[in-house]
Amino acid sequence: MPVRPDYIRPLDLKHGRIDMSHGAGGRAAAQLIDELFLKAFDNPWLRQGNDQAAFDAPPELAQGGRLVMATDGHVVSPLFFPGGDLGCLCVHGTVNDVAMAGARPLYLAASFIIEEGFPLSELKALVESMAAASREAGVPIVTGDTKVVEQGKGDGVFITTTGVGVVPAGVRIDGAAAKPGDAILVSGTLGEHGVAVLSKRESLTFETEIVSDTAALHTLVAAMLQAVPQGLHVLRDPTRGGLATTLNEIARQSGVGMDLDEAAIPVLPQVEAACELLGLDPLYVANEGKLVAICAPEQADALLAAMRAHPLGAGAARIGTVTEDPHHFVQMRTRFGGRRVVDWLTGEQLPRIC
Amino acid sequence: MPVRPDYIRPLDLKHGRIDMSHGAGGRAAAQLIDELFLKAFDNPWLRQGNDQAAFDAPPELAQGGRLVMATDGHVVSPLFFPGGDLGCLCVHGTVNDVAMAGARPLYLAASFIIEEGFPLSELKALVESMAAASREAGVPIVTGDTKVVEQGKGDGVFITTTGVGVVPAGVRIDGAAAKPGDAILVSGTLGEHGVAVLSKRESLTFETEIVSDTAALHTLVAAMLQAVPQGLHVLRDPTRGGLATTLNEIARQSGVGMDLDEAAIPVLPQVEAACELLGLDPLYVANEGKLVAICAPEQADALLAAMRAHPLGAGAARIGTVTEDPHHFVQMRTRFGGRRVVDWLTGEQLPRIC
Repeated sequence: MPVRPDYIRPLDLKHGRIDMSHGAGGRAAAQLIDELFLKAFDNPWLRQGNDQAAFDAPPELAQGGRLVMATDGHVVSPLFFPGGDLGCLCVHGTVNDVAMAGARPLYLAASFIIEEGFPLSELKALVESMAAASREAGVPIVTGDTKVVEQGKGDGVFITTTGVGVVPAGVRIDGAAAKPGDAILVSGTLGEHGVAVLSKRESLTFETEIVSDTAALHTLVAAMLQAVPQGLHVLRDPTRGGLATTLNEIARQSGVGMDLDEAAIPVLPQVEAACELLGLDPLYVANEGKLVAICAPEQADALLAAMRAHPLGAGAARIGTVTEDPHHFVQMRTRFGGRRVVDWLTGEQLPRIC
Repeated sequence: MPVRPDYIRPLDLKHGRIDMSHGAGGRAAAQLIDELFLKAFDNPWLRQGNDQAAFDAPPELAQGGRLVMATDGHVVSPLFFPGGDLGCLCVHGTVNDVAMAGARPLYLAASFIIEEGFPLSELKALVESMAAASREAGVPIVTGDTKVVEQGKGDGVFITTTGVGVVPAGVRIDGAAAKPGDAILVSGTLGEHGVAVLSKRESLTFETEIVSDTAALHTLVAAMLQAVPQGLHVLRDPTRGGLATTLNEIARQSGVGMDLDEAAIPVLPQVEAACELLGLDPLYVANEGKLVAICAPEQADALLAAMRAHPLGAGAARIGTVTEDPHHFVQMRTRFGGRRVVDWLTGEQLPRIC
């Protein structure tokens, strides 16, 4: 632990506010790091106190594994919402992006852009939520950076997290790997995150509170890979743009079409009702604790069983099939027996959702 | 190359502006990625089109090397300044943070937080500057993210870059490794970056234009390690807070004092004059293309020669000595024969400098 310089007084984490000096790299910045970030995230890499973290290579690499890297800026508004906050969201979001390569997430880096005047009490709450999410996921935050911008040039706090992980040899999960005939699965009900954030933003209350599904999915992915070590072709978390946009992305990457069964797509009744009220389509609403999996048809039952056996996949369902389609359309048999094209999100449905 | 969805019309990179839909994850976001980012950064990892990039382990790991990771949010204002811009700065800043571990930088991730209404022409200029800096450094941008915030909730664009690199076996560069008796070296003149940014911000003109020193220092570091494979103890780039703050950080981490010779610290006369005019001390002004090196005294001449033989170290100088000091003071013999303590930066001298 580095020796602390003599701070004039301890940070006032109850009533204090961020000022420009906290971003200047001098004594105030060092104090913020020591008394808030280092205390909450405490781990040997961060304690190195360097501008970068050094760590040993994970054992998977010696057996032919590959490294992965993912980054995500998080600008959710409001910062605190039912079921979560920016702090845990920015850990889950990046852990999930790493895990969707079939990887074991190893380490996170966090970069904070904070608006002058932001209450230290709220920053502390967010940092502690990040720390808890990081500990729960077993993925330490090993390096970071803090910048401060003038009042009116930011919006509270933005956090960019970047993760590195390792993909074991033999695992090849790729958005370009979906094949006609493959089964399309989701790990649970859709739309809770977007509706939870929007309800808080618009001060809406529903009969049943809708809470964000924000969660780290890497243990679910590990369980899925153990059950189906070969036939798993694609994994992706349907965040911004929702399931519809994620499936269109994959259809484009893989050069395939998709055929969905609306009746099989799980949506909570209260989310369905809220979406109707708000004029939203749950297929386009962001999720933060769900994944889409595409696998060889003969593996679908085993994969579904493995997903359902995991707490974060209890509501998993098989929702459709990959098709041959030169137009790469995602189509859906509706509940009423019709068919429609499920297009990309066009324009913007829910800004600042993650 | 993934098949592009049918965009209604190409992005108007001359007169268009960022709107909220560019951050929504749907068709507009995909178009921005395809027609701007992918085109500028073009590389096989980005072309994978996944939410993360996968790459093979670097060969150094098999010989006992270690991985490093560094992240930096860049919020410099103005976005374009003499000698550089946010685009090249965000590449250099993170390449340097990785290199200061004695590492070979491998890959970068970039996360953009863009304000609604930001001109696409300026975004294009920044992205092309990033791409050029990345190509010149030989460190590709392999994954990224784009978020958009409402007008008045950001400030043009913020870019967080995260880098991974590999430290060869046997190299142990650490801020905690300075030893009493060690020599303190800098790679060149100090203060240009901060003065260049400030002069642009304040619309100041000087007789001689002062340009930022922004540069990627990893090839200089490699040359230094080749010349002095063992005795190099600490490397750090004196960015925010300048040389003074960086040396205080190292003194604290290593539990040592430092003794500097003011007459030996290289500062360009025009920077000295500008600092005098602006009431700044060049020792506290940010640099973006300079490094501090601390090495065993018997290696100092060889290290200095290696630095001077590299274009980015041509102005290198030996500026002081590490001392035993339980107070971890950085002290300086002034040009007039006196002595003073060179303290941490207190308060804030130059906001939004990087």
